[in-house]
Amino acid sequence: MTITITAFERSPDGGRGLARDTRVRWALEEVGQPYEVRLVSFRAMKEPAHLALHPFGQIPTYEEGDLALFETGAIVFHIANRHAGLLPDDANARARAITWMFAALNTVEPPILELGNARLLEGDKSWFEERLPLVEDRVRNQLKRLSARLGDAEWLDGAFSAGDLMMVSVLLRLKSSGILNEFPNLAAYVARGEARPAYKRAFDAQLAVYKASHRPAD
Amino acid sequence: MTITITAFERSPDGGRGLARDTRVRWALEEVGQPYEVRLVSFRAMKEPAHLALHPFGQIPTYEEGDLALFETGAIVFHIANRHAGLLPDDANARARAITWMFAALNTVEPPILELGNARLLEGDKSWFEERLPLVEDRVRNQLKRLSARLGDAEWLDGAFSAGDLMMVSVLLRLKSSGILNEFPNLAAYVARGEARPAYKRAFDAQLAVYKASHRPAD
Repeated sequence: MTITITAFERSPDGGRGLARDTRVRWALEEVGQPYEVRLVSFRAMKEPAHLALHPFGQIPTYEEGDLALFETGAIVFHIANRHAGLLPDDANARARAITWMFAALNTVEPPILELGNARLLEGDKSWFEERLPLVEDRVRNQLKRLSARLGDAEWLDGAFSAGDLMMVSVLLRLKSSGILNEFPNLAAYVARGEARPAYKRAFDAQLAVYKASHRPAD
Repeated sequence: MTITITAFERSPDGGRGLARDTRVRWALEEVGQPYEVRLVSFRAMKEPAHLALHPFGQIPTYEEGDLALFETGAIVFHIANRHAGLLPDDANARARAITWMFAALNTVEPPILELGNARLLEGDKSWFEERLPLVEDRVRNQLKRLSARLGDAEWLDGAFSAGDLMMVSVLLRLKSSGILNEFPNLAAYVARGEARPAYKRAFDAQLAVYKASHRPAD
């Protein structure tokens, strides 16, 4: 059955691979599943047809036969659960890998989202400069703990898993902030993720969409 | 095998059931699994023995034989995946229920956490009053979409699932803010969750811990 995902028609991230379809593309590339992409405009994202697929009016979505999913974490989990390559077979190791997926999305990403909101939505506010360091410290608090746990290991728990895919994807959002480089082992961890052939294919695919949408008119 | 979870020795939530161990207690009550609780002080949470269990120095954790997990979402998923009662058997319905778990934790909860941070960590800042409505609107934006999707259904997708358990738990954090009551169908949805016997048992169990820790000295 054909897998179809949705992605931004014009990604606001400048082709840096930070839109969440990249996470799903990466997972599909890791498990070797081909997929099709339907591009969605900002206007169409908030219209009934798309809201029926994604109640929060976002991308990505995932369609395969009569299954329709939204929410990146759920889609990546579904892919990892259905195909070999992203979750260990051993039940306990599998539960631990899934734990890192949830930790990436509910413990590490929230302060990163808050930092993104500060920059994107409050950059013109009188409090922006004074408040920014507080928000950055919330991110640092989580990275300190994560860095201590990772130590000099290659991945978070044994072989590369969906947990690493999600954690690397979340940390990639910090690349432009400089905060990631305060934790050399985390920066190296992210670089190992980016060096994976499956990540590169996913990155190139989203970049191709970005470039096509920003081509000068003929 | 005995299941042991951790919880705050002295919960900062005033016994309102908002600490995350309540989510895990609720899941265990729904599937009818007995469990033991080890209480952890704020100091012990940041010490090596607990950090070995939970790298971010939080509660709850979950131990069962040689399996040790952290992160509420992962623990609830593990319980739901291992025991009948919280996830449908049909593969597609199961994937959709899991989707709601991730949506609760990564789409609905982040702005609620941001609102909590604003109140708890920035209540004394010069910008607090002016900024609060912006943060509240980020919460409202997600609740509007959620409310539209829920409509007059009892639960998010068919029978009560781990997705509802997590969404209700996340929305409970808004109860004191008044925002939840702007969306009557969501307030009723949360009330349906609270009315479940398993929730009541979980709530009472965490309240008993709170009361014992705040008992006047003999």
